[in-house]
Amino acid sequence: MSIREQAHQMKLDSNRMAAVSNTERNAALAAAKEAILAHSKEIFEANHRDLEAAEENGVSPSVMKRLKFDEGKLADVTAGIDQLISLPDPIGRKLLSRELDEGLSLYRVSVPIGVIGVIFEARPDALVQISTLCIKSGNCAILKGGKETANTNRILFRVIYEAVTAAGMPEGCLMQAESHSQIDELLQCDKDVDLLIPRGSNAFVRYIMDHTKIPVMGHADGVCHIYVDKDADLARAIPIVLDAKTQYTAACNAVETILVHRGIASEFLPVLAKSFAEAGVSLRGNYEVLDILSSVESENIDRQPMEEEDFHTEYLALTASAKIVSGVEEAVTHINTFGSHHTDAILTENADTAEYFMQRVDSAGVYQNCSTRFADGFRYGFGAEVGISTSKIHARGPVGLDGLVTYKYRLYGHGQIVGDYASGKSQFHFKDI
Amino acid sequence: MSIREQAHQMKLDSNRMAAVSNTERNAALAAAKEAILAHSKEIFEANHRDLEAAEENGVSPSVMKRLKFDEGKLADVTAGIDQLISLPDPIGRKLLSRELDEGLSLYRVSVPIGVIGVIFEARPDALVQISTLCIKSGNCAILKGGKETANTNRILFRVIYEAVTAAGMPEGCLMQAESHSQIDELLQCDKDVDLLIPRGSNAFVRYIMDHTKIPVMGHADGVCHIYVDKDADLARAIPIVLDAKTQYTAACNAVETILVHRGIASEFLPVLAKSFAEAGVSLRGNYEVLDILSSVESENIDRQPMEEEDFHTEYLALTASAKIVSGVEEAVTHINTFGSHHTDAILTENADTAEYFMQRVDSAGVYQNCSTRFADGFRYGFGAEVGISTSKIHARGPVGLDGLVTYKYRLYGHGQIVGDYASGKSQFHFKDI
Repeated sequence: MSIREQAHQMKLDSNRMAAVSNTERNAALAAAKEAILAHSKEIFEANHRDLEAAEENGVSPSVMKRLKFDEGKLADVTAGIDQLISLPDPIGRKLLSRELDEGLSLYRVSVPIGVIGVIFEARPDALVQISTLCIKSGNCAILKGGKETANTNRILFRVIYEAVTAAGMPEGCLMQAESHSQIDELLQCDKDVDLLIPRGSNAFVRYIMDHTKIPVMGHADGVCHIYVDKDADLARAIPIVLDAKTQYTAACNAVETILVHRGIASEFLPVLAKSFAEAGVSLRGNYEVLDILSSVESENIDRQPMEEEDFHTEYLALTASAKIVSGVEEAVTHINTFGSHHTDAILTENADTAEYFMQRVDSAGVYQNCSTRFADGFRYGFGAEVGISTSKIHARGPVGLDGLVTYKYRLYGHGQIVGDYASGKSQFHFKDI
Repeated sequence: MSIREQAHQMKLDSNRMAAVSNTERNAALAAAKEAILAHSKEIFEANHRDLEAAEENGVSPSVMKRLKFDEGKLADVTAGIDQLISLPDPIGRKLLSRELDEGLSLYRVSVPIGVIGVIFEARPDALVQISTLCIKSGNCAILKGGKETANTNRILFRVIYEAVTAAGMPEGCLMQAESHSQIDELLQCDKDVDLLIPRGSNAFVRYIMDHTKIPVMGHADGVCHIYVDKDADLARAIPIVLDAKTQYTAACNAVETILVHRGIASEFLPVLAKSFAEAGVSLRGNYEVLDILSSVESENIDRQPMEEEDFHTEYLALTASAKIVSGVEEAVTHINTFGSHHTDAILTENADTAEYFMQRVDSAGVYQNCSTRFADGFRYGFGAEVGISTSKIHARGPVGLDGLVTYKYRLYGHGQIVGDYASGKSQFHFKDI
């Protein structure tokens, strides 16, 4: 069967998955955990083959670390499953209960989205996380992982799928796509796939977003800003900026651009440049920034002035942009123009200035006096993270299990017809129950 | 300025609209209402010109009724504005309040979506409703109404825009597009327009959905079903089916297909055919239905058997399809295959059968023992309706003000950095506050 045919069948069958109880879903998750543990030797062997092939292909050590599935990763994913089991049922929650009239009761109830397509990077632990998140939320899922861990993915998928179906999940609730060409096929399944979650490089996510009619949850760029206001506690500003830039440069929530209030620029920028140099961060700036830093000797300052368009850059590396602004108004305009609506912070002790910033910056996360790196489902206490969304529709920011559910309206009547309400014979009384 | 340039400017300015308080927004709505009343004479005159032109163009009486803006419509829209003012502020609601650690507090807060494009049919009252809904929810809006009421739209827009900006709303918060060619331009503004709400014919909405990368809220088809189960109260079934089919045939929530349990088909179908005939409804059916009705004499029965594909049809007229099914399982499969995920009802006195149906039918509304025509924001008690969505992402079913808001995360810290949590120096304690 083609991906299209399989997706269509999955869509038709997805109502069976939607009817499975939380107890059954949790039992399936427990079975998946036991099965992964029981088959750990085979999984490690498959992963070993993937690692050998990657080494032959000259994959870099940092990527090798992601491909690896060892005892440590095993412990992480099984702990993750335990945590998922302990989370409350995301399905069947009554989000609204209202008596429209006597014997006519309306409920808005959370339900699974249906069929979710997840395309993710070569990280075997991601396959476990994603498949178990989908089971916990009653969704069917089509999974396509990075090809560098094809062997590990294949056995992990088989072990999980066999365990959850043996534990009562419907046949066909999970499906794996293995070839890259199937991605384009998946993108065409807008009649049957309800949501796509792409993970990976900016270019890849952008490609997905540009080539499908299926709603996409995720983010391409993460051009995050820190605005250092004239009322900032400058001593506290340096560690925050350093953390946001250096704690994990490859993260989407790492800062790229530092905006500095003109009133403190000549005091703050030289200190920032020195701290950045010590941390190995290259600093770029526009003409005005470089002018202030002209007397600061450092090999880490790029003396070529930045142009406006350069401020769209997401470095994902030990490099940062700096720009001087006249105040919070200009900072907000810069961020809304050059940012990616991900996460942006203001450093200020002035509550009014902070409020102005947080109200007007059009981003999923707006922070005062802390690092942008906090933008993360686990750090928000969601227990599980599906991804981070920069869309304003559906889910925004770090997304937990909530992002995998939607709702439907259930209306229970006793023969009511609209004609009686239109004629005035009956009247609604709208009583929340 | 082109629509694209105007949309870009609106996007940049939308943060000013997001910062306006509920008191100010309500004052602007009150000013709009007063201005409409004060200019009613000019508005009626403009509408008169539209009606004359429509009459010359041979527009049908039912459409003429929609184009008309008279004292009755004026009373309706001003009452609508009063009701909107009385609704609670949809903006600034704290949807989550959590202390991540001491002095590090996270809030999920409802915010306006930003820039909304609404393309609507030729109904002057719709222009008033939409613009005031957007103001109440702090959104900027680009409005494109049907050309048949261009004169009425132009003056209504001018009166409302001048009143709300004089009352303190930011310049440029509302914009009107007047020419049809601007629709295609608007569809290209995916960088600046956050959400599109198209209203109108199925073909038109489908066109919008197929030609833009902007998220679309709405519905194209409304192929709604009623399944009459073997445990249905048949006396009660007839009035429900008649209401769902005939109370307003042009509505998206009108029923198109009646599914009948085989065990009661020979009893129920002849009664249904007779009731339909009396109400002027033409009945179509597949071979099995026509077989049962072979001895029923009626000009309203189409004796040409329906093919499977015919069950996708939305009549929007006094015509209905009928099909016999073996039980609730087949009814669910039929609805999920041929329906449009809008609103579907089961008529049964059996609670288990109803539960099976309501859990497994993948539609925005699933009803037991009442008419599908209840699918409506006002009938759900939302006070205002933006439209009905068959999407599973963002808003589903009848959408009130909720559908015009999203949320952002606000995080307030005191110098916290992620490095301290990664190293174990600090720990999250996740306390809902």
